[in-house]
Amino acid sequence: MKMREVAVIGAGSTKFGELWGQSFRALGLEAGMKAMASANLAGDEIDAIYIGNMSSRLTKQQHIDALVADYTGMAGKHIASTSIEAGGASGGVAFRQGVMAVASGMHDVVIVGGAEKMTDLDDDSVNEVMNATTDADWEAGMGLSLTSLYAMIARRMVHEGLATREEIAACAYNSHFHGQFNKDAQFRKEIKLDTVLRAGPTAEPLTMFDGAPISDGASAVILCPLEDAKKYTDNYVKVAATAQASDTLALFQRKSITEFEATKVAAQQAYAAAGITAKDINVAEVHDDYTVAGCMALQDLGLYKNGGKAFLEGCTKFDAGKIAVNTSGGLKAKGYPIGAAGVSQIVELYQQLTNNAGDRQVKDAKYGLAQSVGGTGSAVTVSILEAM
Amino acid sequence: MKMREVAVIGAGSTKFGELWGQSFRALGLEAGMKAMASANLAGDEIDAIYIGNMSSRLTKQQHIDALVADYTGMAGKHIASTSIEAGGASGGVAFRQGVMAVASGMHDVVIVGGAEKMTDLDDDSVNEVMNATTDADWEAGMGLSLTSLYAMIARRMVHEGLATREEIAACAYNSHFHGQFNKDAQFRKEIKLDTVLRAGPTAEPLTMFDGAPISDGASAVILCPLEDAKKYTDNYVKVAATAQASDTLALFQRKSITEFEATKVAAQQAYAAAGITAKDINVAEVHDDYTVAGCMALQDLGLYKNGGKAFLEGCTKFDAGKIAVNTSGGLKAKGYPIGAAGVSQIVELYQQLTNNAGDRQVKDAKYGLAQSVGGTGSAVTVSILEAM
Repeated sequence: MKMREVAVIGAGSTKFGELWGQSFRALGLEAGMKAMASANLAGDEIDAIYIGNMSSRLTKQQHIDALVADYTGMAGKHIASTSIEAGGASGGVAFRQGVMAVASGMHDVVIVGGAEKMTDLDDDSVNEVMNATTDADWEAGMGLSLTSLYAMIARRMVHEGLATREEIAACAYNSHFHGQFNKDAQFRKEIKLDTVLRAGPTAEPLTMFDGAPISDGASAVILCPLEDAKKYTDNYVKVAATAQASDTLALFQRKSITEFEATKVAAQQAYAAAGITAKDINVAEVHDDYTVAGCMALQDLGLYKNGGKAFLEGCTKFDAGKIAVNTSGGLKAKGYPIGAAGVSQIVELYQQLTNNAGDRQVKDAKYGLAQSVGGTGSAVTVSILEAM
Repeated sequence: MKMREVAVIGAGSTKFGELWGQSFRALGLEAGMKAMASANLAGDEIDAIYIGNMSSRLTKQQHIDALVADYTGMAGKHIASTSIEAGGASGGVAFRQGVMAVASGMHDVVIVGGAEKMTDLDDDSVNEVMNATTDADWEAGMGLSLTSLYAMIARRMVHEGLATREEIAACAYNSHFHGQFNKDAQFRKEIKLDTVLRAGPTAEPLTMFDGAPISDGASAVILCPLEDAKKYTDNYVKVAATAQASDTLALFQRKSITEFEATKVAAQQAYAAAGITAKDINVAEVHDDYTVAGCMALQDLGLYKNGGKAFLEGCTKFDAGKIAVNTSGGLKAKGYPIGAAGVSQIVELYQQLTNNAGDRQVKDAKYGLAQSVGGTGSAVTVSILEAM
């Protein structure tokens, strides 16, 4: 069965960071307005909303679907609004559902947003919510945290000789290097590798600088049928593929913890659907909530044989002429408002593939890939965008 | 654009009630197994999961998508799993997303589940979560609850002469009447109208018997392309339409509180897509989380001009030869495990339209309608199934 082809015709983000002055509602609205403006839409054209948002425990508000429809003024037209939760992959899954809505013919112009307001709570509460994306009974309930689980993975990587500690740390260096060029990023300073290695330990061998920050922020993109894209703008890209895979919730049930099978499966499906291979990708946004996750991603996606080495050798920089990675600053430097993360990756790819990435523009980028991860790889989406 | 047509080929539910002995995980698994068995599936055929689930605050578990993939054994195949939250409409929206996944061609055999485990928490905590489906800042934050908001609606209905108190109460009578025939229902006793009227007040004029109970439970249905349905079973029904609409999150921002505009809009879209009118519906499952909501639903859907009167006069009974309503026992008597509610409605329609509803079978039912509501009508889905 041939699906209707889908385009991204606009994108926008708020600044990511500790945004004390802006409410969850205000952030969502700002990202939506920016995305609509970039697609030259007045708003009336939109007939469905998808939102990635992780936790009602952060905002004390259920029914985020209705909240967003209401505060964007869309409830006045009674359009469908749908909210998705998939831990850290919430934004990636929301994007895929939005693509499906257009591909199915059920909707025509769809806005996909992601938003999270995390800094209104104390750190312990935020950590409790984030750790609940692991197996709440058998991992978090036993005292494990996301950080300690990723620390186990890092330790195992080093133990098996799959990466050195320096290579793992280089993922953070790469993200901070790119963050300096992104005016919406939470951290905009280049750092030294030593800064990562010598920062305070969180769970050994990981330090403060191996993990993405807790952030507020929102991102949004606009989708429509590919055949209609030109009606709205000349700046559009094609959604060449979007795939999603799952794995066990708990890490201890996997055969291997030095690779995410869900990433591999989703990537294979996405490459096949797009009719390309990993070699064709020019720019990738991968889920570096922890440095070691970023390294694994490059390997599992087939982009680099040794992810950490690629970061350490600078192959992943926007101007290296190879596969550029996390040119937005990644989750590590751009910031990590959980529900927004997967959508913000699409925003960056849209800008790269329409040649609007400014100081960090990857030259002649044709294919962009986004990988979004929930928990310790228990849900992964891989989407591929193609420049037109 | 012509969409791929979709069929429901199987359905199953756990018992609804205070299920102290079963975990959230066990409930989801049981419903899924029953649905697969009814569709003659071994499990291998399924290539995507959708789940309606309201709140991680009830289970302390985020990432329900991954949990369900894992505990149903589907994570072994790494298939896509997606979790939806839309307050009380979570199950209805999950069903619609499942339909979209098949209609788009992105997936072929999809299981849509809904589950909620509510009785592990104390009543105050459950109420706090449920009240968070209203506007948390401007309603719940000011002391309003779902119950008090629906009480305002009921008071207004009576004030405007749109319903008598007895007509409103009759919605509960109708649900309890049908509940006695459903072995999975939480309450299986016929009640008198006086029982509703004379029960302890919750928010006047509503009493304990005007509101659906707090419940544990799970339901699941299986979808596939209509053209493939016969491969699996002779017991299948067509998804003739599925529509979704939104409204303001807060009740005070509506022009009228004695009708839900989102129900009207979704119903109009659904009737148009199915090529029928309200008169063609034979059996309907409507969202009677509060009696007054059930009465409004019949009106807003165009099924009866005066919903309460239809209940009071017995037009809605399964054997009255008119439009039968809530033959499952509705949320009021069947039970209201929030995320499961919208899916359990599809289970009932599937059984009615395949002539497997036993003691409560509606004769010659061709079209069934399900209406699922979040908050005070801020999200509504309307789905129409057609017997084959």
